[in-house]
Amino acid sequence: MNKGKLPKSGLKLSFEPYNLQLKHVFTLAGSSRSTTPVLLTKLEFDGVTGYGEASMPPYLGESQKTASKFLSNLKLWQFTDPFKMDEILEYVDNSALGNAAAKASVDIALHDLVGKILGFPWFKIWGLSAEKTPVTSYTIGIDKSEIIKQKVKEAQDYKILKVKLGRDNDKEIIQSIREISDLPLCVDVNQGWKDKKRALEMIFWLKENGIEYVEQPMPKENIEDNAWLTSHSPLPVIADEGIQRLVDFKNTVGVYSGINIKLMKCTGLREAHKMINLAKANNMKVMIGCMTETSCAISAAAQISPLADWADLDGNLLIKNDPFSGIKIMDGKILLNEYPGIGIKNL
Amino acid sequence: MNKGKLPKSGLKLSFEPYNLQLKHVFTLAGSSRSTTPVLLTKLEFDGVTGYGEASMPPYLGESQKTASKFLSNLKLWQFTDPFKMDEILEYVDNSALGNAAAKASVDIALHDLVGKILGFPWFKIWGLSAEKTPVTSYTIGIDKSEIIKQKVKEAQDYKILKVKLGRDNDKEIIQSIREISDLPLCVDVNQGWKDKKRALEMIFWLKENGIEYVEQPMPKENIEDNAWLTSHSPLPVIADEGIQRLVDFKNTVGVYSGINIKLMKCTGLREAHKMINLAKANNMKVMIGCMTETSCAISAAAQISPLADWADLDGNLLIKNDPFSGIKIMDGKILLNEYPGIGIKNL
Repeated sequence: MNKGKLPKSGLKLSFEPYNLQLKHVFTLAGSSRSTTPVLLTKLEFDGVTGYGEASMPPYLGESQKTASKFLSNLKLWQFTDPFKMDEILEYVDNSALGNAAAKASVDIALHDLVGKILGFPWFKIWGLSAEKTPVTSYTIGIDKSEIIKQKVKEAQDYKILKVKLGRDNDKEIIQSIREISDLPLCVDVNQGWKDKKRALEMIFWLKENGIEYVEQPMPKENIEDNAWLTSHSPLPVIADEGIQRLVDFKNTVGVYSGINIKLMKCTGLREAHKMINLAKANNMKVMIGCMTETSCAISAAAQISPLADWADLDGNLLIKNDPFSGIKIMDGKILLNEYPGIGIKNL
Repeated sequence: MNKGKLPKSGLKLSFEPYNLQLKHVFTLAGSSRSTTPVLLTKLEFDGVTGYGEASMPPYLGESQKTASKFLSNLKLWQFTDPFKMDEILEYVDNSALGNAAAKASVDIALHDLVGKILGFPWFKIWGLSAEKTPVTSYTIGIDKSEIIKQKVKEAQDYKILKVKLGRDNDKEIIQSIREISDLPLCVDVNQGWKDKKRALEMIFWLKENGIEYVEQPMPKENIEDNAWLTSHSPLPVIADEGIQRLVDFKNTVGVYSGINIKLMKCTGLREAHKMINLAKANNMKVMIGCMTETSCAISAAAQISPLADWADLDGNLLIKNDPFSGIKIMDGKILLNEYPGIGIKNL
């Protein structure tokens, strides 16, 4: 591991790059890849270690290099009380613009550390009920019909599948799946639709085919078109690319029916929690999503999932080399465990 | 103590009425009194006891009788895991309309209980810093000039005094205080001003006399007048009667500069925390206030005070028979302690 600067009696941060090997080549509306670069962090204090992770799909602009640089510049040993989470994470956030995933890796490790000191998992500390975790969707990437059918067969334990759309074969993909499965579906268009009227027609067609909600149908910049689509849509329309952090929330009110919160976009659990409260106070739907991630970041996000309407926390199931064991999926639903902190063990 | 229904292995709630003896007769714009009825609660689980309190100034509509009835009807023994705070407090909230103070007494006792099980005070569990507690104001009730001067002399350890205005002698009261003290002041009008133009003139005059903010200048029903006043006021205008609970927050945006959150109005710490996050996300000021209360409810509110811009947590200092020892005031600032839970000990 690359060691951070030498700690005095304060928090000791260290980190190492790690490359996730994907089980299937992953195709979105704009790119394909077979690995995802991440950075694994450790935060040590008084003999207790918290684990964190930054997942950095290339299209989001962060990399192992940028995250390493960001983390190397942090002087966390100045903090001698890990309980001052607000102050510590405010310092981390203010130390540079951007770097959301790198910031999340500190937030997650700090939550793991403090939860371990408290001796309880965060869902309990937050007063949430394990039974209220939502079902989680399993993601089917854009692919040839035969491979999509193969993936759907592998996913029969799930209660809802998330299908990536946004190219020219959307109906064909849905029809291929419907030939072999009646499972509820949701679709993630990743801004792939450009015409609002065609988008609305497509949503009506999707509703007839058992789709439950639509994620980011049109480019995030088209505020008016997304707002028009949401107001006419028979299905909930969820912002993903259209919201990163708490400060963006105001731009989603009246534009989308709900928001997809991802730790790697919003800098971690602390801000995610505030975003959820804000969304709920505005009667908006909440979805907890993920990147391709190890069980570390997935289990962290799962701690907060009892507050969400839907989860999409399958990122760890898409990889072959998970170094952690954490939350499980049972009958398509997130199953929290009693491990203190973010709910993981090292493998 | 009146015992609640017999517990099985779940939470055991008990409660007793208690009458606070005030050091000074307390005069607001509409009434005077020398005692405040409260109800002290206990929540026991697995050998640990959490303490709570409902404070019920008569003008707010709750009484020892209504709170006793509300609490007697709760079946908290059905809950065998005190960590399910969301579920437990949702059950309490849904069991009857109103009864905000009675509900707060359960919320406070549950926080005390869970914090004691976790072994830490809530300000730490929430990740807040003890150094960030705000200064707290000391309240000077409406009274004769000589008595007001006497009270101001007693309050020289404070950094800001809260002066109750809203009758016909507002300027006289401020002038009496200014004869003997240069301390910063804030004023609480308790809806006492009826004409917006005279109110604005008064606020300009108050600003010249070292007043820092104005609380609830006009009747809460006059949304337009309060909004007009806020937009023209040289001082922040804070809603008090104008906001009770989270659901009322939307009615304060664009109408006031900030909100006064009181546990007895908003049903406790859990909802208070959400209201603070909502206010901050809307760039509004946050004040934590209180009724006349023992150190139990005051110390509970103090746990969350590092998130507030101003505090008015002097309710325990106005009484002669406080059964608890809790947070202190040092140089006018709230001083948190390390007692687990809400930070109190029985006397």
